[in-house]
Amino acid sequence: MPAAELVAIGTELLLGDLTDTNSRTVAGVLNGVGIDVYATHGVGDNVERQTRLLQEILERADLAVCTGGLGPTVDDVTRHAVARVVDQPLELREDCLRAVEARFAALGRTMTENNRIQAMLPRDAVVLENPNGTAPGFVARRSDGKIIACMPGVPREMRAMLDERLVPWLSSHYGLTQTTVSRAIHTIGWGESQLDDAIHDLFESQRNPTIAMLAHFGWSVDIKLTARAADRHGAVALLDELEGRIRQRVQHGIFGVDEQTLAGAIGAALEARAWSLAVAESCTGGTVSADLVAVPGISRVYAGGVTAYENAVKAHLLHVREETLRAYGAVSEQTAVEMAAGVRRALDASVGLATTGVAGPDGGTPEKPVGLVWIALATPERAQARRLQFPGTRAEVIRRASTAALALLWRALEGDG
Amino acid sequence: MPAAELVAIGTELLLGDLTDTNSRTVAGVLNGVGIDVYATHGVGDNVERQTRLLQEILERADLAVCTGGLGPTVDDVTRHAVARVVDQPLELREDCLRAVEARFAALGRTMTENNRIQAMLPRDAVVLENPNGTAPGFVARRSDGKIIACMPGVPREMRAMLDERLVPWLSSHYGLTQTTVSRAIHTIGWGESQLDDAIHDLFESQRNPTIAMLAHFGWSVDIKLTARAADRHGAVALLDELEGRIRQRVQHGIFGVDEQTLAGAIGAALEARAWSLAVAESCTGGTVSADLVAVPGISRVYAGGVTAYENAVKAHLLHVREETLRAYGAVSEQTAVEMAAGVRRALDASVGLATTGVAGPDGGTPEKPVGLVWIALATPERAQARRLQFPGTRAEVIRRASTAALALLWRALEGDG
Repeated sequence: MPAAELVAIGTELLLGDLTDTNSRTVAGVLNGVGIDVYATHGVGDNVERQTRLLQEILERADLAVCTGGLGPTVDDVTRHAVARVVDQPLELREDCLRAVEARFAALGRTMTENNRIQAMLPRDAVVLENPNGTAPGFVARRSDGKIIACMPGVPREMRAMLDERLVPWLSSHYGLTQTTVSRAIHTIGWGESQLDDAIHDLFESQRNPTIAMLAHFGWSVDIKLTARAADRHGAVALLDELEGRIRQRVQHGIFGVDEQTLAGAIGAALEARAWSLAVAESCTGGTVSADLVAVPGISRVYAGGVTAYENAVKAHLLHVREETLRAYGAVSEQTAVEMAAGVRRALDASVGLATTGVAGPDGGTPEKPVGLVWIALATPERAQARRLQFPGTRAEVIRRASTAALALLWRALEGDG
Repeated sequence: MPAAELVAIGTELLLGDLTDTNSRTVAGVLNGVGIDVYATHGVGDNVERQTRLLQEILERADLAVCTGGLGPTVDDVTRHAVARVVDQPLELREDCLRAVEARFAALGRTMTENNRIQAMLPRDAVVLENPNGTAPGFVARRSDGKIIACMPGVPREMRAMLDERLVPWLSSHYGLTQTTVSRAIHTIGWGESQLDDAIHDLFESQRNPTIAMLAHFGWSVDIKLTARAADRHGAVALLDELEGRIRQRVQHGIFGVDEQTLAGAIGAALEARAWSLAVAESCTGGTVSADLVAVPGISRVYAGGVTAYENAVKAHLLHVREETLRAYGAVSEQTAVEMAAGVRRALDASVGLATTGVAGPDGGTPEKPVGLVWIALATPERAQARRLQFPGTRAEVIRRASTAALALLWRALEGDG
């Protein structure tokens, strides 16, 4: 297998002004086509340091993949460093220049002279077109066959170029025939150690696919399977087989795989029952609703929600009784249950889901400390509520409470609640 | 100035399973106290590669700062690599062992034997206590005075250890007397090139503080100032002076600095007028409300909101007229205006803010394409609406529309709308 190292370029990375997300993307994609990633690096807009780093990388690896530093400003020196390392002069490429000019024309802007530099590439480089931006990428080869690939730093431009241009070129160049396919099985309501108990013998006995566990913020744990095979079809078959064995052990709480979300699983489960949903939020303030609305097509089952931040809104829009608020307070089982029932009625939905709690940092009391959250669910069949106590900042309490509310609903729909 | 390189440790970084956010945090903090960051690196759980990388770094830099690889499992080999590079054996530290045991006891869990490894440090290392987790960090010194600092990879644990333990140690060790302080001035409603026109002469003439611009997703552009001085007080004075000059040029649209958010600025502006706010959302689905509720203390001005996803909810809870929905449709100026007025009345608030649009990916028509969003505002003084057309995915349209709605409200409160 060819081995690569990744280089994220830009002084802003070294000043702490920007998080490098490109390396993760590139690493995942290269692993998937059978290229090992040995290391990642971040380096500033400094032609000497870039040159030295690239030379060192090509001592160890077959391939350096760079992102960033291809723009038109004097800061952008990546092409100069690469030209030095592969020992080829930069030359103006007419086809690239026309593409850059066309991009400016399409945006109705005049191309300033400094943009011509974006069409200058090391003499023998292969162009990687940029459908989403002005700067083309390129692949340069050193005389010993070692390779440096350069792509723009803007994640959207980089991603398209990686998938549509660089990966096909690398697959063909290296004759890659092995494919790696990963699948993340998403669970909710299982602790990492409980899951480990349930499937650890599969971990031990298993080399292809491999199994790993990844706990997410909130309540969700992923079981990640990675299979290698001669082609995608073979890898998927291995994944399907192992997923089947895992599902026999973990019968409840698997809500989806890969891009599937908990909110998306809820949408599908509601649709299967022809149920509609309404949400009443206090402490989560719209986050549960926003999670649901992130799902395309959720309008088929989601009626809407009420963020009842003031008690008056709980009373008037959700019909929580004044006596309940007086006797038990806004953060209580009774209020949560009346909010869920109230929003269900007010929006004429099959199911009502509610949250009320103390998100902090202020407003806690000894009886109702910061992090206390009640969630409640009213379905055509029954009502239920759950008391939770979360650690963390305001943002963390809100995130955890929102996931917990969706999890309560999901388990009820799954028939396990 | 001492020079550092950063190392993020973990095979998951090379597989594309995780984005390294620690390097950005560490880079920002080190720059702030006068330590240059030359490069960042990511390396797997491999003791040979870690050893080689650390040796190379200490050829170039005074200091390597590592995050990750300090846990109890066989994967976690960072301490072994560091012990090799500084040429000191790992020894069990009784004080660390007691801290690890106490942490387990506090969580009500039994410490398994493998956790003892977390108390093993290179012989002469200085311990960095971990108030938020089990694994302590440490600082090891090689005989030539070069330094390797190790912290856990969990961002929350790392951040507390960095601020409270490592930075004080480094400041004292290197006798750091120069301080760098940055300030981000947040603007809304300005394009990057418009802002550039307004202040580019300050860019040119200015070396301390430096000025940079950073465009964010959505509508917001930051002007970032960075000042160096002998102490924090001196740096802050330089920033204050330059911020004053920038505010003379950019009189409208600055909503805050640093940690201040647009929603927070809106909260403060509402409070100054003793106004309350209610929000009616269709396409943004709760995101505007969630942005507001992220602000501590927002309950003083935020009454709540209605996510009116179904037309029936728009009609019944927000009193949008059936004729309006029939004649103009849910995505229209008329509906947006009635939603804003309706939520203002229904929640008895001073101000009503509304969104309605086509978030996609489906549901667009030639007249009302995906990305079309109407936002509307009803205040005690007047009503207004704005038509916007956003590019991008469903999530991007929702994010941009939410920010645009908050921006409309902010400008009205600023007296500029």
